[in-house]
Amino acid sequence: MKLATFTKDGSTRIGAVVGESVIDLGKADGALAIDMLDLLKGGPELMDRARKAASGEPHYALGDVVLEAPLNNPQKFLALGVNYEAHAQEAREAGIDIPDAQMWFTKQPSCITGPYHAVEKPKVSDALDYEVELAIVIGKAGRHIPAAHALDHISGFTICNDISVRDWQRHTAQFMIGKSFDTHGPIGPVIVTSDEIGDPHNLDIKCFVNGEERQSSNTRDFRFDCAEQIAYLSQAMTLQPGDIIATGTPAGIGAGFKPPKFLKAGDVVRCEIEKIGFIENKIVLES
Amino acid sequence: MKLATFTKDGSTRIGAVVGESVIDLGKADGALAIDMLDLLKGGPELMDRARKAASGEPHYALGDVVLEAPLNNPQKFLALGVNYEAHAQEAREAGIDIPDAQMWFTKQPSCITGPYHAVEKPKVSDALDYEVELAIVIGKAGRHIPAAHALDHISGFTICNDISVRDWQRHTAQFMIGKSFDTHGPIGPVIVTSDEIGDPHNLDIKCFVNGEERQSSNTRDFRFDCAEQIAYLSQAMTLQPGDIIATGTPAGIGAGFKPPKFLKAGDVVRCEIEKIGFIENKIVLES
Repeated sequence: MKLATFTKDGSTRIGAVVGESVIDLGKADGALAIDMLDLLKGGPELMDRARKAASGEPHYALGDVVLEAPLNNPQKFLALGVNYEAHAQEAREAGIDIPDAQMWFTKQPSCITGPYHAVEKPKVSDALDYEVELAIVIGKAGRHIPAAHALDHISGFTICNDISVRDWQRHTAQFMIGKSFDTHGPIGPVIVTSDEIGDPHNLDIKCFVNGEERQSSNTRDFRFDCAEQIAYLSQAMTLQPGDIIATGTPAGIGAGFKPPKFLKAGDVVRCEIEKIGFIENKIVLES
Repeated sequence: MKLATFTKDGSTRIGAVVGESVIDLGKADGALAIDMLDLLKGGPELMDRARKAASGEPHYALGDVVLEAPLNNPQKFLALGVNYEAHAQEAREAGIDIPDAQMWFTKQPSCITGPYHAVEKPKVSDALDYEVELAIVIGKAGRHIPAAHALDHISGFTICNDISVRDWQRHTAQFMIGKSFDTHGPIGPVIVTSDEIGDPHNLDIKCFVNGEERQSSNTRDFRFDCAEQIAYLSQAMTLQPGDIIATGTPAGIGAGFKPPKFLKAGDVVRCEIEKIGFIENKIVLES
């Protein structure tokens, strides 16, 4: 199932995308007239109702709705640094010390925006960069989740562009502020449920800027797989339904070029992941 | 006004603490039968209603209710590293490089717990530490807030113990995971509104472990004051009502002693800030 949040006639709702059509889940079943976070919190029972609703007649053509971020109010938006071996090498060459442990930081949920929405070049920086990432969406709460059972806690996957303001990211050793500018967390276009993804460690992942391929890899090159990520994080904190976990980006970021290829107003960044689709965001000057 | 979230007879509600009594705000005014985040989002209009309700007859004795974290679902829980000059010196001596810029990291909202609730010593670490901090609670949304107007965006202040798992904090350069263990964000006992605090840069702040004074300072020793903090953060991100900003801890953390004085099961940590009160948390083994 491909779960979406969409706007139609001024109201924002959840739906299922089937081919080029959208099923309005709340219209099909009043119990689903809720937001994506509440659907995920509802667990298997509500998700089964969503599946039933998604097998009915479509309500709208996909082209007649605006796709929003599928989920914009997670409790946590976690992100993993340097999780592809080739990107780790790129980072080492940029003088960044790559630890053996998983390097987790945060994007603030306030940075989330839609899959085809504008991304702002901040007033305070010219060092704007892209990072295509596979993002896990948690479906079942848990603490101390063993790696062997970790994939059971995943509801689905989406695409994230972990937009980064490189100079602010390096004001101090803490990445968070440079990762959390408003509009710097485009996600979508849909959450593809785990059953449709199959093995999340065999997905092609690419990023293009104005049509030029900048990143191209496959999630089989992860340094830490999804299960190891969930196992590590949940030793510290309870993961909750709706938590978003961005799993790291491949080599090819703008900061890795000499001179760096930072994003400027008018650029279009397209992030693609096999079995999910693509998101595409235009860079605009912050208003 | 001293705003609280309390549990009485199995239900959790918001209230105002007046002396040794509690006014149930939702009982006094049905429009206030909401949680603290929604009260803060309601802006001046709802806050005025809360003030009116808080001038009525009390409903309960303070001793007959359980005080919870005044707010447990903020969008953001930000925290500032080394913001007291003496603590910066302590950190330098521990080999940590202190940047000139404000060093912001995140505590995940899932770590929030009540003012007198248990704090867990994790299974995976023995390096448990305390950090008393003055925490700002944002009352008015804003981006690019000039320092001159920043204090207008504060609804009130509370006490935070920024409990830290030092070894996990140092697995990599990113502090977040070591700052976000479940139960490691006790806050409270109340949010004291700005009008009652007056100048937030002249408050005594102390931390005791089993009655022994470990931290003692005054917020006048901030390296970056509240206005500078809000101005810096809001260059990157929109601050929202309910966002919690922990403003840094004074010298005297357990990791600073030789050998370190880490917390163990049975220890009682008391954090006091002038004009707010105290929170007191017992350390228990993680269950």
